[in-house]
Amino acid sequence: MSRLRVHCFAISIDGYGAGPDQSLDNPLGVGGMGLHEWAFATRTFRKMFGQDGGSTGIEDQLAVRGFDNIGAWIIGRNMFTPSRGEWPDDGWKGWWGDSPPYRCPVFVLTRHPRPPLAMDGGTTFHFVTGGIHDALKRATEAANDRDIRVGGGVATIRQYLEAGLVDEMHLAISPVLLGTGEHLFAGIDLLKLGYRRSEHIAAPDATHVVFTK
Amino acid sequence: MSRLRVHCFAISIDGYGAGPDQSLDNPLGVGGMGLHEWAFATRTFRKMFGQDGGSTGIEDQLAVRGFDNIGAWIIGRNMFTPSRGEWPDDGWKGWWGDSPPYRCPVFVLTRHPRPPLAMDGGTTFHFVTGGIHDALKRATEAANDRDIRVGGGVATIRQYLEAGLVDEMHLAISPVLLGTGEHLFAGIDLLKLGYRRSEHIAAPDATHVVFTK
Repeated sequence: MSRLRVHCFAISIDGYGAGPDQSLDNPLGVGGMGLHEWAFATRTFRKMFGQDGGSTGIEDQLAVRGFDNIGAWIIGRNMFTPSRGEWPDDGWKGWWGDSPPYRCPVFVLTRHPRPPLAMDGGTTFHFVTGGIHDALKRATEAANDRDIRVGGGVATIRQYLEAGLVDEMHLAISPVLLGTGEHLFAGIDLLKLGYRRSEHIAAPDATHVVFTK
Repeated sequence: MSRLRVHCFAISIDGYGAGPDQSLDNPLGVGGMGLHEWAFATRTFRKMFGQDGGSTGIEDQLAVRGFDNIGAWIIGRNMFTPSRGEWPDDGWKGWWGDSPPYRCPVFVLTRHPRPPLAMDGGTTFHFVTGGIHDALKRATEAANDRDIRVGGGVATIRQYLEAGLVDEMHLAISPVLLGTGEHLFAGIDLLKLGYRRSEHIAAPDATHVVFTK
């Protein structure tokens, strides 16, 4: 049976999963890139962006794990594009170039319908207007018994957490302050939702924890 | 000139500095003791509670630093007693026995006046009804050019942070989930208040960060 998993999702010391004032220049909000320094140092992430080298230790293993046995992804629209509202006719095909690193169906939550977009390398973006449950249903069918990864952003993860649908969540706490932005856990009682911390890895660049139900 | 410092203050992964349902049995709220496991493993904390042994590494050094050049403390009433409202005639003299580890004047924020309480070993508890600024003024006079430590709890630290009065803050992020309780940073924009992260130590039992202005 497919499980719903979150991996490599980073928050700041003050709990924000993205900084304020997201834009084309700052897709993760002001200061938000600092959340992912640990990830961009790994071989797995560097390879995704066509770069050589990178670390191969525990943090790279965590990055690798995030792709293991994943048959479909779910992401919020803001992870796909900086545009908002009706889809503009701007030829935008995501942040990742012609061959996105997903290499499987990706279900994009949006209020605005749009035909699927097939990319090189096996990634097809499907635009889902029916909400998180519909997206999960379609992703589960597409995943064909493999797992589904919720990529983010904060609002999408919060919805799946609050609905009690996330089975496993790997969180990285990065040693940065964001001050304001999108708070991942505000008002969410993880214990009440049945989560327990199952792993804790104090790495030099970030502290990693895994929650499971 | 005296500086106002916070040391060894622990929060959970989800940002809580104390658990829910504080009581005599659970002075730090349900699950709150888990925040301080890293501290209770150190030689410095064990010694405070009359125990031998304990770790002497980086986390013990952080504990030692919290007592260095401190001439006065400020704490919230709930750190002194489990009682609330008018002071009961119950002979309560704090959680620490006859010889508390402060060994200097301690200013306790409360709405209810009470005469000072002199203890063995140099600690005197002064009960301040004039609010955080009055407590800081009195603590500064008492500290005689040494620094002042804000011991906690969450509400007290939040008030001093929001007033921009904390000069340095050492925070420990413990790998526990509390789910609910008293959130340390909710609604507080540390960057806007002028804080920057000046240190980051990934220790096995907790992740330590220091903020300074």
